[in-house]
Amino acid sequence: MLREALERVASGAAALRGADAGVRSSMLEALAAGILAQRHEILEANSADCVEHAAALSPSLAERLKLSDEKLDVAIRGLNELTAAQDPLGTVLARTELDHGLILEKVSVPLGVFAVIFESRPDVFLQVLGLALRSGNGVVLKGGREASGALRAMEHAARKWLARRDMSSEWFLLVEGREAVSDLLQHDDLIDLVIPRGSNEFVRSIQAGSRIPVLGHAAGVCHLYVHSSADRSKAVRIVVDAKTQYPAACNAVETVLVDARAAAEVVPMLCRELELAGVRLHGCDAVCSLVPGVDLVPAEGWSREYGALEMAMKVVSGMPDAVAHINRYGSHHTDAIVAEDADVSEAFIGLVDSACVFANCSTRFADGYRFGFGAEIGIGTGKLHARGPVGIEGLLTYKYVLRGSGQVVSSYAAGGGSQFAFRRLPT
Amino acid sequence: MLREALERVASGAAALRGADAGVRSSMLEALAAGILAQRHEILEANSADCVEHAAALSPSLAERLKLSDEKLDVAIRGLNELTAAQDPLGTVLARTELDHGLILEKVSVPLGVFAVIFESRPDVFLQVLGLALRSGNGVVLKGGREASGALRAMEHAARKWLARRDMSSEWFLLVEGREAVSDLLQHDDLIDLVIPRGSNEFVRSIQAGSRIPVLGHAAGVCHLYVHSSADRSKAVRIVVDAKTQYPAACNAVETVLVDARAAAEVVPMLCRELELAGVRLHGCDAVCSLVPGVDLVPAEGWSREYGALEMAMKVVSGMPDAVAHINRYGSHHTDAIVAEDADVSEAFIGLVDSACVFANCSTRFADGYRFGFGAEIGIGTGKLHARGPVGIEGLLTYKYVLRGSGQVVSSYAAGGGSQFAFRRLPT
Repeated sequence: MLREALERVASGAAALRGADAGVRSSMLEALAAGILAQRHEILEANSADCVEHAAALSPSLAERLKLSDEKLDVAIRGLNELTAAQDPLGTVLARTELDHGLILEKVSVPLGVFAVIFESRPDVFLQVLGLALRSGNGVVLKGGREASGALRAMEHAARKWLARRDMSSEWFLLVEGREAVSDLLQHDDLIDLVIPRGSNEFVRSIQAGSRIPVLGHAAGVCHLYVHSSADRSKAVRIVVDAKTQYPAACNAVETVLVDARAAAEVVPMLCRELELAGVRLHGCDAVCSLVPGVDLVPAEGWSREYGALEMAMKVVSGMPDAVAHINRYGSHHTDAIVAEDADVSEAFIGLVDSACVFANCSTRFADGYRFGFGAEIGIGTGKLHARGPVGIEGLLTYKYVLRGSGQVVSSYAAGGGSQFAFRRLPT
Repeated sequence: MLREALERVASGAAALRGADAGVRSSMLEALAAGILAQRHEILEANSADCVEHAAALSPSLAERLKLSDEKLDVAIRGLNELTAAQDPLGTVLARTELDHGLILEKVSVPLGVFAVIFESRPDVFLQVLGLALRSGNGVVLKGGREASGALRAMEHAARKWLARRDMSSEWFLLVEGREAVSDLLQHDDLIDLVIPRGSNEFVRSIQAGSRIPVLGHAAGVCHLYVHSSADRSKAVRIVVDAKTQYPAACNAVETVLVDARAAAEVVPMLCRELELAGVRLHGCDAVCSLVPGVDLVPAEGWSREYGALEMAMKVVSGMPDAVAHINRYGSHHTDAIVAEDADVSEAFIGLVDSACVFANCSTRFADGYRFGFGAEIGIGTGKLHARGPVGIEGLLTYKYVLRGSGQVVSSYAAGGGSQFAFRRLPT
């Protein structure tokens, strides 16, 4: 039954792929109009969800579950921005004249169907439907049980308003229930990409159970390396920001590495400022001997993601030692150096094998919004397809289009008389 | 033991990642010099391989196994071309000023380590080492048992000449034996991409047994759709070329779809020309009734890859029917339309969900060399990362580099006083 529903999504996605930008913009408008018109029903359903699940949820999850006029306004504004945004499909990424009258183009196209598995925040539903329409993809949404009332109300509004304008809503599917996740992951021929949004354990379980490619990160063990040439006040400002501005974020720093040549001066300075900011510290032997009262990091502790006002600090012998530590214990997410010596920071940038490598700024900048991408689909720490913060391009692939006038390959074989020109044309 | 060897490759790859273009060019030169100097030993080892395995190999495999001065010259020329080629690393793919003194760059970097699993042709070894050096990747090569003498001789030459110039050869590993394949596929933390080169069954078994992403295609079921507006002589020329120019190629056509409105004229014409070219035909009911003597395609036969002078032909009701057939039975590799009506061919290009979609030319153009990529790594029919014919870019990923001057995220939060500029800069 799920398979049949997924086949309908695939068929809806095929129609979206053929629809032009204007049609998909009209669908975005219909979606926004439906949510606006049905906002009272949606908010009522959400209130019932909140009452029903209040006891079982932590305060922060309860906060994320709760919708409001303001949150719906933000979501509708997001849809309007996507309606007005430049369409990402049909972009010519490269164009080559293979021969006279034989032009090759590499053109952006939708992936096909993606699935988003999310928790608590029902407004994610609208963001994801909007991204699916703008990128021309079918989408399967699996929300948390605690949000099901609001999700059904939004689904109802979306389908109703699309139908009113004679537009298909076959391209999206809302599924429910924990068991639906493992079911979904079986259909790797119908779903092209899975985007899990949730805890590290949750992402890891999806990665382990899926033959479908996964866009996500199961850990954010980010580092800051303070080189001996670092401007001391920049180092303090950056370390404090990277740890304390939002400690639960995946791009918050977990370990500070300090150059041995500067350790006697920099370690006590950093520890003082971090303690003032309420950060609990764990150090290597050298740090513990420089600053009394710091806990020793256990040997297996260097890959720990604290995700709170708590972090590790280690003295390293120099840049190569810092790079080796980062490539071994890090999660290839975001790592940064603080150094005034540009030769050192450029070498660090070249050697660290992470999606984001920064010099003289906070790791917290690693984010789709701060990178100027508009919407962020997710952050990937794998290396294929999309890496680091991923915008709407992560929902696209390309196809090669070759337009000829009767050409055959035998003409270009030995003795065929034709030769390729391979002339790059402007896109 | 394999794991330790792979860890050495990863460490060699990390050194390559840090090496500049000139160093990797010198390594390419050393490799070419080694093969040139040791060519007699290599050819002797290959002769022994050929004698030993002559009885067990088909004539075409025996031909592919046999090295010659000419084949080594071609391989050395390939290395020299890679030495002279523009280095693909460090290319700035995008550049944005996030704020004054805070510049984001998206820069091309190597994937890390890839593995190539190949059969028979020992000269693939040199092509793959060359691509690894130019792209800055470590590589694991698993060749066929029948080629092991020549492969060992080439490995010896490569390591010896790199060592003579004090250059590392830790970044590559040659493994032997069928059981090594399943061993290799376990180490998804050390190998970033697997490229299988071999039969469809072989590629399918790698895809099924691997958690490592696979670049390859397990089938090449390509279609040509002859629309009623098709120029008849172009249609005949293209169909004959696409089937007969090299029938075993993955981009050779397997099924011709003919528009019902033109079937009475076009089907007999195509059948006559294909029969003259020695092609055995299988048709749908309509084709069989138009042309006596054509075999009926069995119901489950439309996904068959003939790979020989044999093909299927079907009458379809129009373009949407052709697209539905292709998206259902094809392998998303290469599909083409012959049509003078540009509206129809553009709609076909938009709706067909394949890596390559062509109009008015042979499917056989789907190839890295004919697309002007230089070397071809493989052809992918998946949608993530690299799709269609893949050049050296398939061995690359990117990282985001952000260079600042002390910026922290709290300055850009509410009340922080700073605002992002998001100004696109030239690359």
